[in-house]
Amino acid sequence: MKLCIIGSRGHYGYVFEEIGRFPEVEIIGISTGCADDVSRLMGDCQRAGASPIIYEDYLKMLDELRPDAVVINGPFALHAQMTLEAMGRGIHLLCEKPIALALDDLDRIEAAYYKTEGIVLMSMVGLRYEPGFMAAWKKLQEGAIGKVKLIHTQKSYKLGNRPDYYKSREAYGGTIPWVGSHALDWIYWFSGSDFGSVLASHSMEDNFENGELEIAAQCQFQMKNGVQASASIDFLRPPGSPTHGDDRIRVAGTRGVIEVIGGRVTLLDDKGEHEIPLSADPRLFSDFVGQIQGTSKGLVSAKDTFNLTRACLIARESADTGQLIHF
Amino acid sequence: MKLCIIGSRGHYGYVFEEIGRFPEVEIIGISTGCADDVSRLMGDCQRAGASPIIYEDYLKMLDELRPDAVVINGPFALHAQMTLEAMGRGIHLLCEKPIALALDDLDRIEAAYYKTEGIVLMSMVGLRYEPGFMAAWKKLQEGAIGKVKLIHTQKSYKLGNRPDYYKSREAYGGTIPWVGSHALDWIYWFSGSDFGSVLASHSMEDNFENGELEIAAQCQFQMKNGVQASASIDFLRPPGSPTHGDDRIRVAGTRGVIEVIGGRVTLLDDKGEHEIPLSADPRLFSDFVGQIQGTSKGLVSAKDTFNLTRACLIARESADTGQLIHF
Repeated sequence: MKLCIIGSRGHYGYVFEEIGRFPEVEIIGISTGCADDVSRLMGDCQRAGASPIIYEDYLKMLDELRPDAVVINGPFALHAQMTLEAMGRGIHLLCEKPIALALDDLDRIEAAYYKTEGIVLMSMVGLRYEPGFMAAWKKLQEGAIGKVKLIHTQKSYKLGNRPDYYKSREAYGGTIPWVGSHALDWIYWFSGSDFGSVLASHSMEDNFENGELEIAAQCQFQMKNGVQASASIDFLRPPGSPTHGDDRIRVAGTRGVIEVIGGRVTLLDDKGEHEIPLSADPRLFSDFVGQIQGTSKGLVSAKDTFNLTRACLIARESADTGQLIHF
Repeated sequence: MKLCIIGSRGHYGYVFEEIGRFPEVEIIGISTGCADDVSRLMGDCQRAGASPIIYEDYLKMLDELRPDAVVINGPFALHAQMTLEAMGRGIHLLCEKPIALALDDLDRIEAAYYKTEGIVLMSMVGLRYEPGFMAAWKKLQEGAIGKVKLIHTQKSYKLGNRPDYYKSREAYGGTIPWVGSHALDWIYWFSGSDFGSVLASHSMEDNFENGELEIAAQCQFQMKNGVQASASIDFLRPPGSPTHGDDRIRVAGTRGVIEVIGGRVTLLDDKGEHEIPLSADPRLFSDFVGQIQGTSKGLVSAKDTFNLTRACLIARESADTGQLIHF
C-alpha cells in the first residue's frame, strides 16, 4: 500500500504513531503543498524508516506516484481543494479536520465523493480513539447509562505562540471548526444522532494579539433524537498547566452518568462510582488502513465526516450571526 | 429581632444552621401556609430551643405577631403572594427561590419593593455561600484568573421520590427555575454582569413518571459584558451516587482557570495547579440577619434577586418555545 503525505500543519503524527503496525504501508512521497519547509515531515519519515520522494507540487506527486492513499494536512484553507484533487484521482484519503472551511466547498466534496467508487474518506477525529473516550463510548454502547439525555463536552488548550495562519479567519477557519470540531464530534458520536439545531458564540476579544483567532467559544445543540448537548471551547489554559489540553465529556443518561476528565473515565450508576479501565484499541490510522484493506468497518464513515464538518461550519455561522440555526 | 417562618417545602434549614450565632433572633411564629403538616418545622424549632406559636393562617400570624422578618418557603406557587403580603407589611423577608413562578408576579413584586422603605429582601441562593463556591469567587475577585471569558456551571441531583407538587408545572414552576436557579445565579455572580440573551432547552421525556417535571435542561447565555456562559441541569444522578448533588463551576479567564468540583476548588494559573482552601465565612442566614442589623452590606441585593428570578423565568420561556430570547 503506497502512501503520500501532503502538508505538515496538522496531525499527520497519527500516521507515525501506528505505522509500525503496518509493514505493508510505504510512504513513497511527501509534499508540504505550500511554501512550508519540508524538513520536519521528512525527519519523521526518516525516523520511521521511510525514504519518500519530496515534491514541491503535490499534484505532480499524486500524478506521478499514483498512491493508494494520501494524508492531507496542508494549509487549512486548502483542505477542500486537496481533498477534491485526491478524490478525483480515486485515492483514499485521511484529511485533517475540518475538511472544508466553507459550506459550498463541503457541498462540492460531498457531491464528488458519491461519484467515486467508494473510496475511504476520513477526517482526523483522532480524539475519538483516545483511550478514555473510547472506553467511555464502549461502556455507553453496553447500556451502562441507559438512554442518553444530556451531554457536555470541553476542549481547552494552551494558546502558546501560534503561526500567523491562525490569525486570519480566511486561513484558520475559526476556533469552533479547528478546536471545537472534536467537542462536536464527541457530541455527534455519543448522542448517536444527527444535529438538529445550534446556537453558538465566540469571542476574539482578549486574544493576546492573535488577530481574528477566537479565544473562547460555546455551542448548544438539540440533537434530532432529543439529546441536549453543549460544548465549551477555549485557548485559555494557562502556560503553567500540566498538560496542553483539558479534554472532557460528561454524558448523563437514564441509568447513570459517565465522564472523561484528565484521561480518566468515571461511571456513576446504581452501584456507585467506578473507574473504568482505558481502552487499548488501535487508533485513527489503524482504522483508516483497516478500512482500505477491508479488515475493519471503520468508526467514522464519510457521511459522518460530512455531517460533522457541516455542524462545525453551521455552528461558526451561528456564532458569527448570533442566530439560532436549524439543520 | 422577631422572626416568623412560613412553610417547610424549601430550604428553611438555612435558618437553623446559623441561628445559634444570633441569640437576639427569636422564632415567634410558624405556619405552613397550606395544608402541610407543621410537625417537621415545629420539631426543628424545638431542637433550636424555640417555642413559636403555630398558625393555620399565615396572614393572621403576620398581623398578630408583627415580626421583624419572615422566612418564606411554602408552596412554590405561593412564593410571590406571600412575598407581596410580607412586603406590604414592611417585613424583611428571606424567600425560597424563585420568588415568583411567572413574570407578571415578579413585576408586581419588583414594583411593590420599591415602594417599601428599603426592606431587606433576599432569596435562598444559599449555594453562593458554599465554602468552595465562596472561595472560588473570592479568588476571582482578587484577579487570580484575569478577565472572565467563559463559564460553565452544573447542577445534577438525585431524583428520588418527589412529592406530587413537583409533577405539575403550575405547582412546581419547572426544573430551570427550581434546580437551575443556582447554576444561573453562579453565572450571574461570577460573570459580574447582567444577562444579555439566553437559549435554553428542557425535556420531560424519560422522567420516571414524574408528570411535567423536566428531567434535564441546558441554558446558554451571553452576558452583557461579553462573558459566554452555559449551564447543564439534571435529575439524572443515580441513586447509588455518593452525594445528593454534583454542583460545579468552571470559569476560564485571561490569566487562568478556576473551578469547583466535588466541593474542592482548583486554580490553574501561570504557576500550575493549586488547590484553594475553602471559605469559612458565615452563610446565607447570617448575611440576611447582618443586613437587617446593618452590620453587613449583603452579598445579594433585592435587585440581584429580581434579575436572577427574571433570568430563570425567561430561560424557562426559551426552553418552552425553542426561541433565543434577548433580555
